[in-house]
Amino acid sequence: MGKSVAQKLIDAHLLSGRTHPGEEIALRIDQTLTQDATGTMVMLELEAMQLDRVKTELSAQYVDHNLLQEDFRNPDDHLFLLSACKRFGVWYSRAGNGVSHPTHMQRFGCPGKTLLGSDSHTCAAGSLGMLAIGAGGVEVAMAMAGEPFYLNMPEIWGIKLTGELPDWVSAKDVILEMLRRYGVDGGIGRIIEYHGPGLDKLSAMDRHVIANMGAELGATTSVFPADEAVRRFLASESREDAFTSLLADADCRYDIEAEIDLSLLEPLIAKPSSPGNVVPVREVAGEEIYQAYIGSSANPGYRDFAVAAQIVRNGTVASHVSFDVNPTSRSMLETLMRDGHVIHLLHAGARLHQAGCNGCIGMGQAPATGKNSLRTVPRNFAGRSGTREDHVWLCSPETAAASAMTGRITDPRGLGMDYPRIVEPEDPVIDTQNFMAPLTYEQARAQTLLKGPNIHSLPDFDPLPNKLRLPLLLKVGDNISTDDIIPAGARVLPYRSNIPAISEFVYEQLDEHYVQRARAAGAHAIAGGMNYGQGSSREHAAIAPRYLGLRVVIAKGFARIHWQNLINFGVLPLTFKHGSDYDKLAQGDLLVLEHFDVALAAGSEIEASIDGRGDRLILTHQLSPRQVAVLCAGGLINWMRERN
Amino acid sequence: MGKSVAQKLIDAHLLSGRTHPGEEIALRIDQTLTQDATGTMVMLELEAMQLDRVKTELSAQYVDHNLLQEDFRNPDDHLFLLSACKRFGVWYSRAGNGVSHPTHMQRFGCPGKTLLGSDSHTCAAGSLGMLAIGAGGVEVAMAMAGEPFYLNMPEIWGIKLTGELPDWVSAKDVILEMLRRYGVDGGIGRIIEYHGPGLDKLSAMDRHVIANMGAELGATTSVFPADEAVRRFLASESREDAFTSLLADADCRYDIEAEIDLSLLEPLIAKPSSPGNVVPVREVAGEEIYQAYIGSSANPGYRDFAVAAQIVRNGTVASHVSFDVNPTSRSMLETLMRDGHVIHLLHAGARLHQAGCNGCIGMGQAPATGKNSLRTVPRNFAGRSGTREDHVWLCSPETAAASAMTGRITDPRGLGMDYPRIVEPEDPVIDTQNFMAPLTYEQARAQTLLKGPNIHSLPDFDPLPNKLRLPLLLKVGDNISTDDIIPAGARVLPYRSNIPAISEFVYEQLDEHYVQRARAAGAHAIAGGMNYGQGSSREHAAIAPRYLGLRVVIAKGFARIHWQNLINFGVLPLTFKHGSDYDKLAQGDLLVLEHFDVALAAGSEIEASIDGRGDRLILTHQLSPRQVAVLCAGGLINWMRERN
Repeated sequence: MGKSVAQKLIDAHLLSGRTHPGEEIALRIDQTLTQDATGTMVMLELEAMQLDRVKTELSAQYVDHNLLQEDFRNPDDHLFLLSACKRFGVWYSRAGNGVSHPTHMQRFGCPGKTLLGSDSHTCAAGSLGMLAIGAGGVEVAMAMAGEPFYLNMPEIWGIKLTGELPDWVSAKDVILEMLRRYGVDGGIGRIIEYHGPGLDKLSAMDRHVIANMGAELGATTSVFPADEAVRRFLASESREDAFTSLLADADCRYDIEAEIDLSLLEPLIAKPSSPGNVVPVREVAGEEIYQAYIGSSANPGYRDFAVAAQIVRNGTVASHVSFDVNPTSRSMLETLMRDGHVIHLLHAGARLHQAGCNGCIGMGQAPATGKNSLRTVPRNFAGRSGTREDHVWLCSPETAAASAMTGRITDPRGLGMDYPRIVEPEDPVIDTQNFMAPLTYEQARAQTLLKGPNIHSLPDFDPLPNKLRLPLLLKVGDNISTDDIIPAGARVLPYRSNIPAISEFVYEQLDEHYVQRARAAGAHAIAGGMNYGQGSSREHAAIAPRYLGLRVVIAKGFARIHWQNLINFGVLPLTFKHGSDYDKLAQGDLLVLEHFDVALAAGSEIEASIDGRGDRLILTHQLSPRQVAVLCAGGLINWMRERN
Repeated sequence: MGKSVAQKLIDAHLLSGRTHPGEEIALRIDQTLTQDATGTMVMLELEAMQLDRVKTELSAQYVDHNLLQEDFRNPDDHLFLLSACKRFGVWYSRAGNGVSHPTHMQRFGCPGKTLLGSDSHTCAAGSLGMLAIGAGGVEVAMAMAGEPFYLNMPEIWGIKLTGELPDWVSAKDVILEMLRRYGVDGGIGRIIEYHGPGLDKLSAMDRHVIANMGAELGATTSVFPADEAVRRFLASESREDAFTSLLADADCRYDIEAEIDLSLLEPLIAKPSSPGNVVPVREVAGEEIYQAYIGSSANPGYRDFAVAAQIVRNGTVASHVSFDVNPTSRSMLETLMRDGHVIHLLHAGARLHQAGCNGCIGMGQAPATGKNSLRTVPRNFAGRSGTREDHVWLCSPETAAASAMTGRITDPRGLGMDYPRIVEPEDPVIDTQNFMAPLTYEQARAQTLLKGPNIHSLPDFDPLPNKLRLPLLLKVGDNISTDDIIPAGARVLPYRSNIPAISEFVYEQLDEHYVQRARAAGAHAIAGGMNYGQGSSREHAAIAPRYLGLRVVIAKGFARIHWQNLINFGVLPLTFKHGSDYDKLAQGDLLVLEHFDVALAAGSEIEASIDGRGDRLILTHQLSPRQVAVLCAGGLINWMRERN
């Protein structure tokens, strides 16, 4: 039987394990990607590992998140990252170069390669026929040190695309359709592979849009074939030599199959406050908006900005609308300027921000109280925008631009204008000079790390004891995101290099007294529902609670990256054998787990009792023997130290 | 005897008083300017006055300061300002339109008119032959309500410019030379009038640079003639109809005279942390920098950006340098893009920020710990950048761009390239459509004010009692700025519409326990040195301490706007008759002032005793009878209410 693109990528990088869904495999990692909000911790981990020089084919560090410099913290981080890149042999993409995912695709993307990134949207590079996976920082650090990347073999989910998108419907609506159908946990344990004749009219950047938000489905990653569209993209970036064809075999089969007829799609929108709340735009048309936001890794393409520019070119946005335009990258901005699109955006009232993630991660551009914000970004978890009780909607650039003009949520098909067809430029501006190449080995050895006063080394963590008596300090519901656990935004992000300081913010949106209780209790447990830890890959959502004493999380189910992050920092993730046991637990319960290390090692069930109540819970785990060892050592860094 | 430009402007607007230096005069105000960081309070004051519609010829509200939206506060303020502009008949310049001063000059500047602005750099419009004065918000509110503006008649200081600037020396170096010669209090009580043959080669925007930073000299304002350069500027903005010639009479004399031979100037730089610490660039060349910052009202001209673009066009800035480019205005950005300058800046590594004040007011772009930041902005008071112990230097765009390339403070004359001569465009892009014109009276009456939860009405303040026993809670030195009293920056600015909240930050940089002491003590006094309250016009530096109980400030001398703000909110500003009495005071002293209202009214001296020590102080005041009445009423709003 023939192979899919995903299978070929995995087979070509398989170091150990069998590719049976659910079994742990180890993959060789060719490239890594880090950004500044997670990368400082990665570099501190490399320091802790005493790494001399990265062992990947290519590692690149981007400065795209913490761009607002309210005080010394963020700029200190940037200088630290520059010094670490010099020390360890990593490419440095300076602030203003743009969002890591599209920028990496432009400068370093390479069909057939694996890419591990400390950002959940790393999967966007699947658009080029790469196997690109988001992971916690310490796993990326391990990959940089030449270690394999371990994961449970996912199922391969083939999505056949047929037909052609109608006018006013674009790639964003395709991924919103996926979210409408399958929800925010529909992709858990799966790689999504797009195939079929519908691909022909989707450019590499359109595919980026779709692959990027595979993260919102909970998928391990998404992949597209490396076909003519990919060759054309790389050629336009003067990198055709990086192209190799990578196609699914004609007779390949997928573990699961589904189909989308593109011609039947219409403009879609995700209502507040989950990417899974998708409805047709027409159903919610007319609601007044405060903000229309263009940009982010979820709509990074030339056409995404150009189509918005052509929609707004003959007028101005409504007087009460903040029209925030966030260029993807330095080179994209230069191209859009050259081709005359930026002037239309500005003339219509755009606030043109520096290239980067910006408001997508709550780094500025927060909406007003009680007002709707329409954004082309990938996520709308409550509070992620910076405004606590926000109303953020996710949509295409067409819908955002149309709504900016009217001041209300607007189906762009109703604008009464011809659909602006954007032709991707064959000769985009290429900016390579603002990427600092790795130093030679001799130069690098002379470099020292430049640490500002807010940059603290990673705390040491104890091994996991084999008897635990833990108060349950918090019980939360389904689909808790890492934004809920450790908020993003301009207020909190500057503490990403400082675990003691950032731990003050854990769960503050859901329960402002949790930190206080944790400080008083020390070792403790948390209970959660389905899809616990969805969203961003930030390992701080594991490290900071662990710093406060978290030892066990019991949930109905976990999102992949956060589950892995918990293990990496010595927090035991357990699931209820019987989901209804969730209801037996109450905040304040004292949980007793005894000799569970044996059960962990044997792969069997674990019994927990609730002190003073006689209730017992049957818990299970999905840990590999390697992960049990990591956990018992107190996390990956301890485990590494023990091995060396 | 002939008249100067300043005298003509004053005579044409004089409502009462004699134009003898030091005597109070009242002027008719034609135009007002407010920005968002001071304007919300102005609008709340208009609401408190129950104003129906502004009575000026033109009032314009800009959104240029609080552009970073970390949460709901700043965007709520923007929507509040929009609603207030609609209600009161004010022009609204939306976020992204740019910095108020150059934007006002472009769109509304008009030779021969008076302009009062709630921003200390309002004086920049003196470049067009306007009498443009910065003032506290409530005075601008009064002017909007049709009331006269009162000030003590300044001396007129004629500065004769001769010769022509050498290559690599530009308008910024002219005002830095003024600061080098005369220091940050050299202009107190004066209007600076520039004249002479050296004006011929200075464009209207060059003059803006010089007039703008007259604020740093402590001057009441600066004026230039409305001559051919002004006509040319207005014509290029399609506003030649606004031009009227306004020239000094040939035989006019100035109260004080001085001369600058432009041909003798060289690149200058103000060292940290005062605009008065000016030295030649060559004396400090070689120091490593972290940041080179282009933009702000102190270098807003087309040529300021274009010359930087031409300097960096053949390379990239040093890898450790953050090259922050802050466009002056939407239309300026559009013009610079059209003419090909922006692409050079970007290609060299610029971070292109939205048009506005941005880092100049500490709204982002803070420098790294212990690193030098070179900026074209007007001020470098300690901490204003957002980084507490910062090292900010003030220089020309030529010096900033040259230093960005080398990574070290660099005299641009040493670059070894030809000086890029910039020709101002005759047809700049003109953006009028993003300015919202006042509504008709009927439309306006239907509008309501849109107040977010952070927008609090102005607190009520008591009248000044005629006996005070006050602990001296703080004693500070010379040249205390309003940035010292109430910090700027992204952390504090969002509370500008909320006096109870912003009062938590009073004096936090100098004495973190002052607020606590004030809360405990209630009514209290502060002692200061020379030039107390220099810098920004923010009335919050008076209102917030008043809210905490401040009743009296005794200083060796006051900066004009802050002195006026204290009076406006019922805080008594007194000066030592004998400067050496300053040394008699110590923090914690209990000051007793009895029956001083009589002395105030009589214009005589006031005696204060220090309880338990026998020491007595002789204090004086410069209050007009009107100001005494305002003070005794507890401030301008109470006084207005009593009159109505």
